[in-house]
Amino acid sequence: MASTAGLRWGLDAYTSRRFTVSAHAVDSPVLPNTAFRRWFDEHRRANQFTVHRIPFDELVGWRFEDGTGNLVHDSGKFFSVEGLDVHTDWGDRGAWMQPIINQPEIGILGIVVKEFDGILHCLMQAKMEPGNLDSVQLSPTVQATRSNYTGVHRGRSIRYLEYFLPPRRGDVVIDSLQSEQGAWFLHKRNRNMVVEVTEDIPLHDDFCWLTIGQIHQLLCQDNLVNMDSRTVLACIPFDAPNGGPREPARGPYRESLLRSFSAGAQQSLHSTGEILSWLTDAKSRHELIQRTVPLREVKHWYRTPDEIGHEMGKYFTVIAADVSASNREMTRWTQPLLAPVERGLVAFLARPIDGVLHLLMQAKTEAGVFDFTELAPTVQCMPGNTGDLPVHRRPRYLDVVLGADPAAIRYDVVQSEEGGRFYHADNRYQIVEVGEDFPLDVPDEYRWMTVRQVTELLQHSNYVNIQARSLLAGVHTTW
Amino acid sequence: MASTAGLRWGLDAYTSRRFTVSAHAVDSPVLPNTAFRRWFDEHRRANQFTVHRIPFDELVGWRFEDGTGNLVHDSGKFFSVEGLDVHTDWGDRGAWMQPIINQPEIGILGIVVKEFDGILHCLMQAKMEPGNLDSVQLSPTVQATRSNYTGVHRGRSIRYLEYFLPPRRGDVVIDSLQSEQGAWFLHKRNRNMVVEVTEDIPLHDDFCWLTIGQIHQLLCQDNLVNMDSRTVLACIPFDAPNGGPREPARGPYRESLLRSFSAGAQQSLHSTGEILSWLTDAKSRHELIQRTVPLREVKHWYRTPDEIGHEMGKYFTVIAADVSASNREMTRWTQPLLAPVERGLVAFLARPIDGVLHLLMQAKTEAGVFDFTELAPTVQCMPGNTGDLPVHRRPRYLDVVLGADPAAIRYDVVQSEEGGRFYHADNRYQIVEVGEDFPLDVPDEYRWMTVRQVTELLQHSNYVNIQARSLLAGVHTTW
Repeated sequence: MASTAGLRWGLDAYTSRRFTVSAHAVDSPVLPNTAFRRWFDEHRRANQFTVHRIPFDELVGWRFEDGTGNLVHDSGKFFSVEGLDVHTDWGDRGAWMQPIINQPEIGILGIVVKEFDGILHCLMQAKMEPGNLDSVQLSPTVQATRSNYTGVHRGRSIRYLEYFLPPRRGDVVIDSLQSEQGAWFLHKRNRNMVVEVTEDIPLHDDFCWLTIGQIHQLLCQDNLVNMDSRTVLACIPFDAPNGGPREPARGPYRESLLRSFSAGAQQSLHSTGEILSWLTDAKSRHELIQRTVPLREVKHWYRTPDEIGHEMGKYFTVIAADVSASNREMTRWTQPLLAPVERGLVAFLARPIDGVLHLLMQAKTEAGVFDFTELAPTVQCMPGNTGDLPVHRRPRYLDVVLGADPAAIRYDVVQSEEGGRFYHADNRYQIVEVGEDFPLDVPDEYRWMTVRQVTELLQHSNYVNIQARSLLAGVHTTW
Repeated sequence: MASTAGLRWGLDAYTSRRFTVSAHAVDSPVLPNTAFRRWFDEHRRANQFTVHRIPFDELVGWRFEDGTGNLVHDSGKFFSVEGLDVHTDWGDRGAWMQPIINQPEIGILGIVVKEFDGILHCLMQAKMEPGNLDSVQLSPTVQATRSNYTGVHRGRSIRYLEYFLPPRRGDVVIDSLQSEQGAWFLHKRNRNMVVEVTEDIPLHDDFCWLTIGQIHQLLCQDNLVNMDSRTVLACIPFDAPNGGPREPARGPYRESLLRSFSAGAQQSLHSTGEILSWLTDAKSRHELIQRTVPLREVKHWYRTPDEIGHEMGKYFTVIAADVSASNREMTRWTQPLLAPVERGLVAFLARPIDGVLHLLMQAKTEAGVFDFTELAPTVQCMPGNTGDLPVHRRPRYLDVVLGADPAAIRYDVVQSEEGGRFYHADNRYQIVEVGEDFPLDVPDEYRWMTVRQVTELLQHSNYVNIQARSLLAGVHTTW
C-alpha cells in the first residue's frame, strides 16, 4: 500500500495504515468549513421532496402476500416485512412475536479516501432519504443495496461503485460485515468499507471532500452525519500520537481517552481473550430461537388499512409512504417504512481505570441478531417503553445517565437512524463520564472495555451492534 | 493468570500464556510412553462393546415425525435428521437437496491442563464412541452435548465438567465456538476450551495426563486421537522458540514451519486484513440460501426400512444402530448414525514463501455452514464421488496431492471423525510440501496463509472448518 506520511492507522495485523486522532485537520484546503456549510445548505434547499403517508393499497409494486400476510415486493427483492417468533432465556426477556424486516442481501457502505496536500480527505455525499428528519444528510461515498447495484432497482448507476467492486482501483483499508438494528431487522448486515485511492477522481455534484477532523466536528451536530457514515467511521482504528502528547494538555478525560485508543493488554481491565470467553459462555449456555412466521400470525400486533402497530402503542409501526424527490435513483416511488413510536436513548458510561478510559459495554440479545448477542452501549432503550416495567426489568444504568451532572456529559447529540427504511427514527446519543469511585464490579451482562478493544473486534463481523458503532464514532470526537 | 515458566502461549492479545512447540517433552514423568501404551491398550480391551445395525423401527425413543418424515427424538432434544434445500452461486455448485443433522445446541469440548514437575500436561480420556473404527480413542477431558450436561441424557454426571462451567476453578486459555462438518450438520458448533488449573485433581479411571509432546506423537498414528481432541489442540497458538533455533538444524521445511508459527504481517504473503477482505467480498457478492424442508421432500434420496441414502450411492447414508457398552453414560442405547460411503481425502499444500511456510487455504461453502463460507484445506473431497464429474468441476489440486513425491509428504495419517454421530467416518489427512517453483498465483477461492494467521482466526468463530482444524493439529507435529 502507498505510504501516507503523517497519518497513522492502527492495528498492524489488519492494515499497514495508521491513523492518529490528533493529527486531523479540522479545516480543509479543498473545502473549508464555511464553504462546506454553504454547499450543504444549498443541497438541503435544492433537494426539496415530499413524503406523505398513504394506505398500504396505494403502494406500487408492494402487496400483502396471500396466506402469510407478509408485506412483500412483486420482484421478490428489496425487503419484506414478516413475523418473527422469538424465545430466549437471556436477560429475563422470555418469548415474544413481532413484525421484522427481512432483507437478506448485503449492501455496500463505502468511503473513498484520498490525500490532498498531504491531508487525508473522505469523499462524502449529500444524500436524501425519505425517512430522514432533515431531508439531506451526509452519507458515505457509496450507500447501495445489492438490488441497487445489480439493477433490480432500475435506478441510475451508482457513482464511484467501481472503487468497491473488483477489479478495484484502490487499497482496501477497512472491509467487514456489520449488523444493523437487531430489533427491526432479521440478520441484516452491510459491508463497511474504506478504500484509499491515489488517482484523480472526478467530483460529481452531490459529493464533497472533507477531512476526518471536519467530519468529527459535524458528528457533534444533530441529524447531519447519517447512520451509514457513522458505522463506517466507527471501524477506523485510531492510535494515540507517538512520543507522548503533542497537544496542549486537554484534561484527564481526554488524556485517558488517548491512552484508550492504543491501550495494550496490560492496560485493559480484561484481556480480549477474557472478553471473547465471556461472549462464548453466553452463546453456549443460553438459547435464542428465532423462527419466521406469517405476519398475520403475530400476536398483539394489529393491521389497519394504513398501519401495522402494537396493540399497546409500543415499539414501532409499519407505514406506507409516497416519496417524490429530484436527485435520487428514481424521481418518485412508494415504499413501506418502519416508524418507531418515540426517540431512543443510547449512552456509554465511560470511566478511567488506572488512567485509561474504559467504556461499559452490554451483551445485548435482540430479536433479529445474527449470532445470539452483540456488544451494545451501556444503555440502549426507548425510555417511554420502560415506564410500566417492574423495577428489576428497567434498563440498568438508565438512572445514572438521566441524572448525570451536565459537566460529565462528553457527547450529547441527536442522530438519525437509516432513512431508507426508518421514518423519523432517531436516538439521543450520550457519553457520560463517571469517576473512579464508580463500581468496577458490574452485572454479568456488562464488561468494561477500552476503545482499542472494541475497535479490534470491529475488524470482524457481529461483535458490536449499530448503536454502539454510532456512538463509538462520537467517542472519537471527544478527544 | 498464574505464570508458567518455560511455556509460551502465543497471541498476546488473547491470553498471557505462551507456548513453544519445541519446548515439549515427548515423554512424561507422570505417564511415560510405555506405560501410556499399556494403559490405553487395556482400555481398548476392557471396553468391549457391540454396535449392530437395526431397522429404524427398532430405534427406542426415535421416530419418523408425521407429516415431515423427519427423524426425531421423542424428547425434542439431541438432534434430528431433516431435509435441507440449498442454493448458491459460489463455486459452480448450483442447487441441491440433502438430508442434514440439525443439532442446534452447543456442546463443550474441553481439555484441562496442569503442570507437573514444570511440564504442562493435558488431561485426556479413553472414550468409546459407537461409530469409531477402533472403539476407544483419546478424547478431551470433557466432551459433552448440552443435553448430556443438563440432564436430558439421563446419564451419569460428567467428570471434570466443573472446570468448564462457572464458577470456574481454573484459568481459561482457549474458549471459542468452532463449527463441525458443514456437509452433514446444519449450523453446528461446539465450544472449544482449554482451562489451566493449579489445584490437585483426582484422576478418575479412563483418564490420564499426557504432555503435548506425547499427544503430538499420538497424532501421527491412525485413529487414535479423536476429532474433538484435534479441534481443541488446533486452537492452541504456538510460538517459535525465542532467540533463534535451540534445536539442531532440522532442515528447511521445519525451519520454515517454525517461522510460520510466529510470522508477523511483513512475513505473510497477504496481510490478515487482506484475507478478511477477501472473505467479506465472497460473503457480500455471492448467495447461499439454506432452507430446511421436510425430510420426505428431499429429492434424489430414498428411504428403506433400515437406510436413507442417495439414489446414485453417493455421499452418505443414515442408518440406525443398537449399541451396548460398559462405561459410557448409559450401558445400552439405540441411535441414528450418519455413514459416509467412502473415506475422504483432506490435504494441505504447504509452500515456503521467502522462508516462511504458507498453507494453501480454500474458501469452501458447504450445505450447513453458519456464515456462507469457511477456510478449508486445499483439498477436501471424497475421491470416489469425483470420478464422474466433468474435468472443470473435479477438486482442484487433487492431482497434485495424489501424484506427490513420497519424500514431500510431511504428514499422512487416517483420522476418524466424530464417533457419536458418524459411523466409520474417516479421512486420510495429508500435508504435502511443494517447492518454491509452485505457482503463488492461485484461483480466487484460494489464499496462501501462515500458520499464525490461521491460528489467530481460531480465536473467533466460523473462520476455519473442522477438517482444516484437524489437519492444523497435524501441522503442529511436523516441526
